[in-house]
Amino acid sequence: MEKEELTLERLEKIIAEKNVIALRELFENEQTIDIAEKADRLDDIKQLVFIFKTVKSEYTAELFGYLSPENKEKLVNVFTDKDLMELIANSYTDDIVDFLTEMPANLVTRILKVSDKDTRADINHLLNYKERTAGAIMTTEYVTLLSTFTVEEAMASIRKIGREAETIYTNFVIDAKRNLVGTIDLDDLIFSDPKEPIVNVMNTDFRVVDVYTDQEEVAQDFKRYDLNAMPVLNKDHRLVGIVTVDDVIDVIEEEVSEDMAKMAAIRPLEDSYINSSVWALAKKCIPWLIILLVLGIGASVVLNIFEETIGAVPILAAFIPILMDGGGNSGNQTTVLVTRSLALNEITPKDFLKVVWKEFRVSLIVSLAVAAFCFIWVFFELSTGILGYSALTGLTGWAWFFAVARIAALVSLTLGTAIIVSKIIGAMLPLATAAVGLDPAVVSSPLLTTIVDVVALVLFFFASAQIFNLI
Amino acid sequence: MEKEELTLERLEKIIAEKNVIALRELFENEQTIDIAEKADRLDDIKQLVFIFKTVKSEYTAELFGYLSPENKEKLVNVFTDKDLMELIANSYTDDIVDFLTEMPANLVTRILKVSDKDTRADINHLLNYKERTAGAIMTTEYVTLLSTFTVEEAMASIRKIGREAETIYTNFVIDAKRNLVGTIDLDDLIFSDPKEPIVNVMNTDFRVVDVYTDQEEVAQDFKRYDLNAMPVLNKDHRLVGIVTVDDVIDVIEEEVSEDMAKMAAIRPLEDSYINSSVWALAKKCIPWLIILLVLGIGASVVLNIFEETIGAVPILAAFIPILMDGGGNSGNQTTVLVTRSLALNEITPKDFLKVVWKEFRVSLIVSLAVAAFCFIWVFFELSTGILGYSALTGLTGWAWFFAVARIAALVSLTLGTAIIVSKIIGAMLPLATAAVGLDPAVVSSPLLTTIVDVVALVLFFFASAQIFNLI
Repeated sequence: MEKEELTLERLEKIIAEKNVIALRELFENEQTIDIAEKADRLDDIKQLVFIFKTVKSEYTAELFGYLSPENKEKLVNVFTDKDLMELIANSYTDDIVDFLTEMPANLVTRILKVSDKDTRADINHLLNYKERTAGAIMTTEYVTLLSTFTVEEAMASIRKIGREAETIYTNFVIDAKRNLVGTIDLDDLIFSDPKEPIVNVMNTDFRVVDVYTDQEEVAQDFKRYDLNAMPVLNKDHRLVGIVTVDDVIDVIEEEVSEDMAKMAAIRPLEDSYINSSVWALAKKCIPWLIILLVLGIGASVVLNIFEETIGAVPILAAFIPILMDGGGNSGNQTTVLVTRSLALNEITPKDFLKVVWKEFRVSLIVSLAVAAFCFIWVFFELSTGILGYSALTGLTGWAWFFAVARIAALVSLTLGTAIIVSKIIGAMLPLATAAVGLDPAVVSSPLLTTIVDVVALVLFFFASAQIFNLI
Repeated sequence: MEKEELTLERLEKIIAEKNVIALRELFENEQTIDIAEKADRLDDIKQLVFIFKTVKSEYTAELFGYLSPENKEKLVNVFTDKDLMELIANSYTDDIVDFLTEMPANLVTRILKVSDKDTRADINHLLNYKERTAGAIMTTEYVTLLSTFTVEEAMASIRKIGREAETIYTNFVIDAKRNLVGTIDLDDLIFSDPKEPIVNVMNTDFRVVDVYTDQEEVAQDFKRYDLNAMPVLNKDHRLVGIVTVDDVIDVIEEEVSEDMAKMAAIRPLEDSYINSSVWALAKKCIPWLIILLVLGIGASVVLNIFEETIGAVPILAAFIPILMDGGGNSGNQTTVLVTRSLALNEITPKDFLKVVWKEFRVSLIVSLAVAAFCFIWVFFELSTGILGYSALTGLTGWAWFFAVARIAALVSLTLGTAIIVSKIIGAMLPLATAAVGLDPAVVSSPLLTTIVDVVALVLFFFASAQIFNLI
């Protein structure tokens, strides 16, 4: 049976024909997120409304979550209170909260008004947690089981209340005082004797986080312990919510995007690239460019001081880019590897000496290989005349050879030294910033470039001045 | 009840005292990965062997998976065939395969020899899939259910065969010809009438991948559809394995590390940073440094051509770093944002015009802000004498002001233009490389720097030559 492809045109046609049966079948047979992608591009809000009036609310609640903020807002504006109530009843509170943070205040008020009392309390509660904490990403729909239950009673309870929960694969065992005493995975219940008390089956060495825990830490616990869901406690150590693995995957992606942005000297975006406005993007790009401009003063001063050296041997200027880029790139390689390794908790600032020693050895090999190639390359550039060097005029034989080799040796030795220095600094900076509690991704790259530029240029011009007897 | 902290010393003490009870309790109460971290640092392999002889094999199989390759090898060398058999019986095939790829050939042979026939066939099979494909990360332990089953029969079957499976939360429904006809989540079984045929409950719009699918695509499907497990088909469309969500989290981290390395001009590491040898790291760092060195010829030639301009107005050399770094950094910001957005499937090469138009507007704002600041900053550097400018000697009043302002205007206008050009190139490069099927992370950053360096320097010296009437 060949399945008809899901296109925007097909969706438009079904809606234009008011083909209720085809539309319902579409939602039965296709993934909601795939339909949402097309539905989001419908021109007329009435087309979307038709979908919401026609299709089962379990599908439309999910569909709603995937739409753009603009379409969500338009829909809420035309929804009756009853439509809204149904939408909220079919959504998990963490998804409602995500959506409310994008909406204007009057719509938020309206949505809270039509929610039932419990849901409203939950939403208000979640809205108050700081972004990027466990409190902000947790959901309040989970299964709690009493510690006095048998496996059989637990299963009956899950069958009864589990439909409302975001997961039933991990359930939470509480005592009479509502203290969390264990977690129990559904598979352990399935494989246990129905008469067994659940206290004999539950895990007591479970991990917990509190509502203020940073979402990155939560994600790290999920990865480390291969969790499906994790309990979140308030400051009185009571269970107030759970974080589920699907939300954690989003957190990982978000944190990675943030780290990449930081490494590229961009302040972290509040939203995805595609949803960020031109103005928001510009605002995130400007600060570091200005800071780096100011820090560039070091390299400027060096070049200014050695003005006369360049004046005397103008060919030297041609190698400034090679030295700056070569030093910067090799140091940045190390910084990115070490920063990522820190982010994955493979290393900690305590491994300072070990990592620096490792990078020192790496830098020796890299330096040797690159400097050797650089010698040949510069020799080639000068001897072919790709780079014009006035001092060569009239020279022949060994005199010519030594004049070319002198520059090639100068550039390659400087580059080799710059690589060693910048790889060691590139290893030390992220470890040191992490040790004092700063974010290694933010501080390391810009500082590195600044320092390495100065080091490479000073080395180069100092050596040049020596070689050409200009000091 | 205060829990005693888990330290290496405590573990050593328990082993030294041969305290069997304490050791077993430790594994009951602590997460295995936390114990493994300490156990991996024990000096004597005999201490590890004591743990393996004392603790239940369900714990030691997991512990084994977390140890370093060196310790794994040492253990396998002292294990009897019976020990090995028990270890393999208690491990999932995907974990055994991961470990075998790290071991020397003679140990692999020995392990295959002690495995039972089915396991051996599975392992051999998995070992043959190319790294980073669905075949290489899948496991062969999963639950298949016959499509003729009722919910009750399905549950009975899961209770019977599910203990061996890596997950029972998603199960796979096959027809009499062993074709995969649906997937069924455990929660749907739990909430269904026991007498209901499972064909009425199962999902028929499930996602599949084949054994050759790249692991990155598998991960993207998991994220997009919030999956728990996904079926893997061979080329005859038969079910041969499943990929589970915990393995996918590792894939995401691995792919991210790879992308970050690529963006920093490092060839992707085969292993984590911490497990990579000095030699392996150096080998990954050298190639791009050499390529970039060669590509640096463009900037070198520009500086070589404008040698006389620098000779005539030596202060110009001082601004080379500002222009190269400023242009490179602003372009790199865009490249990283666009590359990441491509990796997350938020945009595709089809959005070329949309993204370039967006970045053009961003670049106008950034350019204006940074150039304005740059004018003030250069004016400050020159007027305070931080950068010495010989042409100012003897000038006073407006003549002095105009001489300083001329340089400040020259630098800031060049920087402003370079920012616009480099942000547009920075947007175009990853989109264009992705459009022709290349990896945007690999190609974009190095090409960008090369192009932007040349553009910024040409702009600067051409404008300088005009202003100072040197052409």
